[in-house]
Amino acid sequence: MDKTCLFGGTYWPIRIGLGGSRAVCRVFAGRSRAALVNPDQANGPPWSGRSLPGGLAWDRNAGDLGGCRVSCRHVVRGGATPRGRVARRPGPYVRVAVLTSGGDAPGMNGAIRAATRTAFVRDWEVLGVPDGYRGLLEGRFRRLTDRTMGGILHRGGTILGTAREPQLLTEEGQRQGLAALKRAGVEGLVVIGGGGSLKGALALAKLGVPTVGVPATIDNDVPFTDMSIGVDTALNTALEAIDRIKDTASSHRRAHVVEVMGRNCGYLALACALAAGAEAVLLPEHEPHPEDLLGALASSYERGKPHFIVVAAEGSGLPARKFHEYVNAAEDTFESRLTILGHVQRGGSPTAYDRLLGSRLGAAALRALAEGEPGIMVGVSGRRLERFPLEDVAAGKKHLDEDTYDLALTLAGMHRRRG
Amino acid sequence: MDKTCLFGGTYWPIRIGLGGSRAVCRVFAGRSRAALVNPDQANGPPWSGRSLPGGLAWDRNAGDLGGCRVSCRHVVRGGATPRGRVARRPGPYVRVAVLTSGGDAPGMNGAIRAATRTAFVRDWEVLGVPDGYRGLLEGRFRRLTDRTMGGILHRGGTILGTAREPQLLTEEGQRQGLAALKRAGVEGLVVIGGGGSLKGALALAKLGVPTVGVPATIDNDVPFTDMSIGVDTALNTALEAIDRIKDTASSHRRAHVVEVMGRNCGYLALACALAAGAEAVLLPEHEPHPEDLLGALASSYERGKPHFIVVAAEGSGLPARKFHEYVNAAEDTFESRLTILGHVQRGGSPTAYDRLLGSRLGAAALRALAEGEPGIMVGVSGRRLERFPLEDVAAGKKHLDEDTYDLALTLAGMHRRRG
Amino acid sequence: MDKTCLFGGTYWPIRIGLGGSRAVCRVFAGRSRAALVNPDQANGPPWSGRSLPGGLAWDRNAGDLGGCRVSCRHVVRGGATPRGRVARRPGPYVRVAVLTSGGDAPGMNGAIRAATRTAFVRDWEVLGVPDGYRGLLEGRFRRLTDRTMGGILHRGGTILGTAREPQLLTEEGQRQGLAALKRAGVEGLVVIGGGGSLKGALALAKLGVPTVGVPATIDNDVPFTDMSIGVDTALNTALEAIDRIKDTASSHRRAHVVEVMGRNCGYLALACALAAGAEAVLLPEHEPHPEDLLGALASSYERGKPHFIVVAAEGSGLPARKFHEYVNAAEDTFESRLTILGHVQRGGSPTAYDRLLGSRLGAAALRALAEGEPGIMVGVSGRRLERFPLEDVAAGKKHLDEDTYDLALTLAGMHRRRG
Amino acid sequence: MDKTCLFGGTYWPIRIGLGGSRAVCRVFAGRSRAALVNPDQANGPPWSGRSLPGGLAWDRNAGDLGGCRVSCRHVVRGGATPRGRVARRPGPYVRVAVLTSGGDAPGMNGAIRAATRTAFVRDWEVLGVPDGYRGLLEGRFRRLTDRTMGGILHRGGTILGTAREPQLLTEEGQRQGLAALKRAGVEGLVVIGGGGSLKGALALAKLGVPTVGVPATIDNDVPFTDMSIGVDTALNTALEAIDRIKDTASSHRRAHVVEVMGRNCGYLALACALAAGAEAVLLPEHEPHPEDLLGALASSYERGKPHFIVVAAEGSGLPARKFHEYVNAAEDTFESRLTILGHVQRGGSPTAYDRLLGSRLGAAALRALAEGEPGIMVGVSGRRLERFPLEDVAAGKKHLDEDTYDLALTLAGMHRRRG
Repeated sequence: MDKTCLFGGTYWPIRIGLGGSRAVCRVFAGRSRAALVNPDQANGPPWSGRSLPGGLAWDRNAGDLGGCRVSCRHVVRGGATPRGRVARRPGPYVRVAVLTSGGDAPGMNGAIRAATRTAFVRDWEVLGVPDGYRGLLEGRFRRLTDRTMGGILHRGGTILGTAREPQLLTEEGQRQGLAALKRAGVEGLVVIGGGGSLKGALALAKLGVPTVGVPATIDNDVPFTDMSIGVDTALNTALEAIDRIKDTASSHRRAHVVEVMGRNCGYLALACALAAGAEAVLLPEHEPHPEDLLGALASSYERGKPHFIVVAAEGSGLPARKFHEYVNAAEDTFESRLTILGHVQRGGSPTAYDRLLGSRLGAAALRALAEGEPGIMVGVSGRRLERFPLEDVAAGKKHLDEDTYDLALTLAGMHRRRG
Repeated sequence: MDKTCLFGGTYWPIRIGLGGSRAVCRVFAGRSRAALVNPDQANGPPWSGRSLPGGLAWDRNAGDLGGCRVSCRHVVRGGATPRGRVARRPGPYVRVAVLTSGGDAPGMNGAIRAATRTAFVRDWEVLGVPDGYRGLLEGRFRRLTDRTMGGILHRGGTILGTAREPQLLTEEGQRQGLAALKRAGVEGLVVIGGGGSLKGALALAKLGVPTVGVPATIDNDVPFTDMSIGVDTALNTALEAIDRIKDTASSHRRAHVVEVMGRNCGYLALACALAAGAEAVLLPEHEPHPEDLLGALASSYERGKPHFIVVAAEGSGLPARKFHEYVNAAEDTFESRLTILGHVQRGGSPTAYDRLLGSRLGAAALRALAEGEPGIMVGVSGRRLERFPLEDVAAGKKHLDEDTYDLALTLAGMHRRRG
Repeated sequence: MDKTCLFGGTYWPIRIGLGGSRAVCRVFAGRSRAALVNPDQANGPPWSGRSLPGGLAWDRNAGDLGGCRVSCRHVVRGGATPRGRVARRPGPYVRVAVLTSGGDAPGMNGAIRAATRTAFVRDWEVLGVPDGYRGLLEGRFRRLTDRTMGGILHRGGTILGTAREPQLLTEEGQRQGLAALKRAGVEGLVVIGGGGSLKGALALAKLGVPTVGVPATIDNDVPFTDMSIGVDTALNTALEAIDRIKDTASSHRRAHVVEVMGRNCGYLALACALAAGAEAVLLPEHEPHPEDLLGALASSYERGKPHFIVVAAEGSGLPARKFHEYVNAAEDTFESRLTILGHVQRGGSPTAYDRLLGSRLGAAALRALAEGEPGIMVGVSGRRLERFPLEDVAAGKKHLDEDTYDLALTLAGMHRRRG
Repeated sequence: MDKTCLFGGTYWPIRIGLGGSRAVCRVFAGRSRAALVNPDQANGPPWSGRSLPGGLAWDRNAGDLGGCRVSCRHVVRGGATPRGRVARRPGPYVRVAVLTSGGDAPGMNGAIRAATRTAFVRDWEVLGVPDGYRGLLEGRFRRLTDRTMGGILHRGGTILGTAREPQLLTEEGQRQGLAALKRAGVEGLVVIGGGGSLKGALALAKLGVPTVGVPATIDNDVPFTDMSIGVDTALNTALEAIDRIKDTASSHRRAHVVEVMGRNCGYLALACALAAGAEAVLLPEHEPHPEDLLGALASSYERGKPHFIVVAAEGSGLPARKFHEYVNAAEDTFESRLTILGHVQRGGSPTAYDRLLGSRLGAAALRALAEGEPGIMVGVSGRRLERFPLEDVAAGKKHLDEDTYDLALTLAGMHRRRG
């Protein structure tokens, strides 16, 4: 007669080979047959497999089995007493790495923390790579612990450090990165950064490293995802600065041209302009006509408006400084002042939105690794999180929302010039 | 021979009867035949109609014709010289009213401003109703001007004033409101407020007042729309307060129970808890087990955590104060402090998100009126603005996002108790 | 027998001739003898004087008698019933003007409000001069009311508007200003502004206009007063920006050179550097040695510090941009980024300190006018408010606190080079 | 012939016996006569003393000799070559401890940092005592390093932790504390905290521990010093909250009673009321008449004021809740809401003022220890830092500034009721 022993209830991590389709679950339960019952999926078939020396293995599509409570039904053939036990392996079964790259963005720490804590739930080990790809190329890693993750959610910047490292875009650099990951025993990589950083992630994915990207850049120029981590904070920071500038602009009855970040993407400038109630906005996506703007400015001056705020994107075809000079060259109109907000926009405690977005995307990135679907970027599309192939992300381009642009013009009292 | 006179290019507002299907365009162009050509819709048929004393009228589905540039081709039969002209009517053609109702929410001013300015583009007149439905019942209106709209976008609260007025939910009250609107010549109404206020909007819509609702409440309990105006600001305000409380909690090694607003909706509390990295959250949607929470608290204390933050929703089944007392009754664990954030969460300059949301929804509400589709609430669904029947909104209920709840538990290191 | 009628308790303003030594109190109390009893000065002699047609007058040194409650004991000789009454004169007795001049500073509104409300307590009339001396030269005035003063205390900038108007420093301009004041019937002037504006105030005082100055400039370069209105807010604004910059500096391991305002006064930069824990500070008052700084920077880099923040005053001998370029020209050290904070520092809701300082100084300015001591600036010296002759203020120079400088160096780990 | 060797220029810490009047300077310079020349005090006599095994000692009043550059003139009698050298002792010569006690206050970290870094300049060792007097009684100490001091200046709360520990006010507790300090070899103590904590400091000083107090409490109830660390931050935090509350109060036309901290000291409430432009203030120092306040409230309501804000101190004779209930019991006047700001006021990044004050007082405390003047509290009096005997501080009481109170009433339009 067979004797059955039910090892129940204890939390028990299951190892999933990240790269392949074969899930190997090691049950240190003696040499006889064993079956795993996952009570969370009570209706499904039990997971059973063949006995292995030192474990239990069965074929299964890779998937997120980790972190659930399992009961292990251990059957010993014949009359012997079941002596084995479901041992919790001392070490973690999977080791992944996390890095932040490119320009820092508030909320990156939330993504690091969520990815790390989600990994810990699976008993995985997480290595942080200092200073982005630069640290990776130099083979630097440091183990992230629960204590490292304490008190970082509300902090700006990235606790891992970051850098712009063009070398990873070379073949030589990629081989070097791959080698460093192998040496460290890293089986999966989470890359948190902007467009350039995600291109690096794609390169590593192509070399076989299971890699998941998380969009984080205050420029909001990563395609497919509605928002990148850091945008909301930068937007509010810039907005607060413009609110301040309006105070002094009104006191002196001046025009102020304010340059905000965004590289070649006008999102930040447009959103700022709309939220600040600016009188005009200069965007890379819309080649502005200086005469139109000067006309609007002159007309505002005549109507007695107390100020004229122009928000200009970094990459605007008509640069902030140039327009500022145009205004000051004109007569009988507002005097202009120029402010370049610069790096102030990068820092600061992340807003609720960026902490939530960072937390959701960081956790989702880890889940994508665990479910064996790397080579993607996790992003937000409406209410939902979605996965987009890194290939598409690298090739895509983010477009401006023209409705928002029209709304900004309408609310500023400027009607768009057609045709 | 007929002579033709083309009045071209000038911006010319077109009157649309809001309630009906008949668009009446008054062209002060003499008594003979006239045709309007809308160059923005070059491919469509010209709008022509029959001559009326003092105008031109034709049948047409009501729609947003307003605010476009029109050329008026005026044909005079016979050899007479066309003497008429397309006169811009001195007054506005349509008069709408805007009110804010229920609890105030940051961003309401952005919605008022956007609705008003969008109306001005159509040359409509906008009346503000002071103090919500109370002002309506008392027949108080004041004209909103471009100047009234200056410098309000960044201000908290509502410049119109608001009130909770249960009388509008009675038949008598509704009749009174309807009469006041008629007396004032109001043809359309924008109601900015929360669930109760939108029920009032539905009542007026049923009585035949073209009414569009805009969801604004920091509780985020309005169904269908992802977010209501004011939620993001309240969330960030509460978050900032909890960040502060964490400082003192860590300094004293204490537990702090923080009650945030949200009535019967746990959204605000859940989002706060996640964004603040709280150790536990009490929600109306999840009946919590005090013993579980006390266990988690005791275990955190033993592990040496510097604080234990509990975010509690107003309407939680286990009230904030009760749990706070439980903790202080327990031994060898954190001492607890209680904070009820209260009205602080309502005020403050709206965040970028709420200014944008307010602006977008306010403009959309006006557009819905202009397009002859009242009886709806405008809301945000993912990236897009959508229209939802007020009937459905009044009957619906907002549900908690369970994924977010699970994420909060995971990141707090607490695993959800199943079954 | 004489009959006595006591008119008691009503608040009753007393007119004080601002310029002269004769206080004239008009009691509309009939023709017989009258005596005023000021219950606030119960121990002093009653104020009595001779009856005048339409009033009561007596000689007295000009002083602040206004705003107290008086009982008027009205004695009618013989048996007649006292028929007169103490009539409150309908109009105000004194008309003063308030202007803000030069660069705007947060807290100016608090000063305007306090001066105005303190005047109202005396039943004086207050005219606001729009756009500083420019408005004065153009003879523009607008009456300030209690309603105008509502909701301005927390607003940045100045509700009166301001301008830099060099013309007032010419004799012609001063005569023009004097004439405008006379035409408007203004008997006293409060000038709120910085050093240049106070020079203008001195010029008007010399021409005989009772003028009191209030120091308001974010540069803190007005001598004698410890602090000027606006400094604390600008300091906190700049500090918050530097806190943000530190986040990104640490993430990238960079040096950041941050230029703050202050013209030729290093106060703002020094206080910022100390409060932000900056690694170095460039001041107009201390000619820095670039090599020393580069050495400190290199040594910090070697010791592994995560960032190197340099705060530079606008007027520093070694300009921010120059030092920034030096750093980037050096090898094997931090990469540098430059931020010029600019006008952001001017605006924003004033801090508690600036609202209190503005309120105290504004009220004190009015009191100085009322007490017949014009030609002075009110300022803060330690805990107390003091009065400083405008003559001295115009001639003086504000010095840097060397102890604070030493402390900044000590806490930054840099020891001052001696000799 | 004697040979002289001048060891010049190197920075060299000098040990000062904190408790006594004998300064012992150990010069590891061989066995012969030596003299120290302090070039910073060129005019004074050289410091010379007798040779000791392993050092050099001389009598001198204790004073701040530390941290100066000294030249050591080392004379060897006879023809021998001077072989000794001025060795920098590897370890620090003096060990002091720092603790924070009582309620935490923003800026405490700045004081810890400044005291510690000022000690490091002298090569002293600094121990931090965790959790205030509680940690002291338990004999817990941890060494503070330069790294521990990095990135703490801008953080709220106290990195050392704090507690309210009544046991130190008992004789038994004091003996225990003294013993712990002796065991740890601590020769001086800096106590950062409020009134109660400074009483503890006095007790230890009386037992012979060189102790210096630093006033830090948001209540501003420590006498002699104008301001305590944390007050300015708490004030701005409370002010910001009241600004927010005003938004919602105006929107609903309500009265709001807001209770702020301050225990039995009305400073915080008064300053808040003045800075927020509140309509009334309830203070422990002024027994308010509810009828007067209700009258003012009713009159404001009639005059159409949009809100009525009452700021109440914690310890007010007429408690916030009671007045709130009075208002709601009254008819035809504002509806009231109550907010108790609570612990939110304690936390948050310190303002510039509190960082500067903390830094100045922390450094001054260390200097007082070094100069052999313990038993005092360092405080700020006007522009200057001063020292006040702990004895006086413990016996004193902080008084309200009546001028500020009058100003608040004047600006709120309420005149003070006399006698």
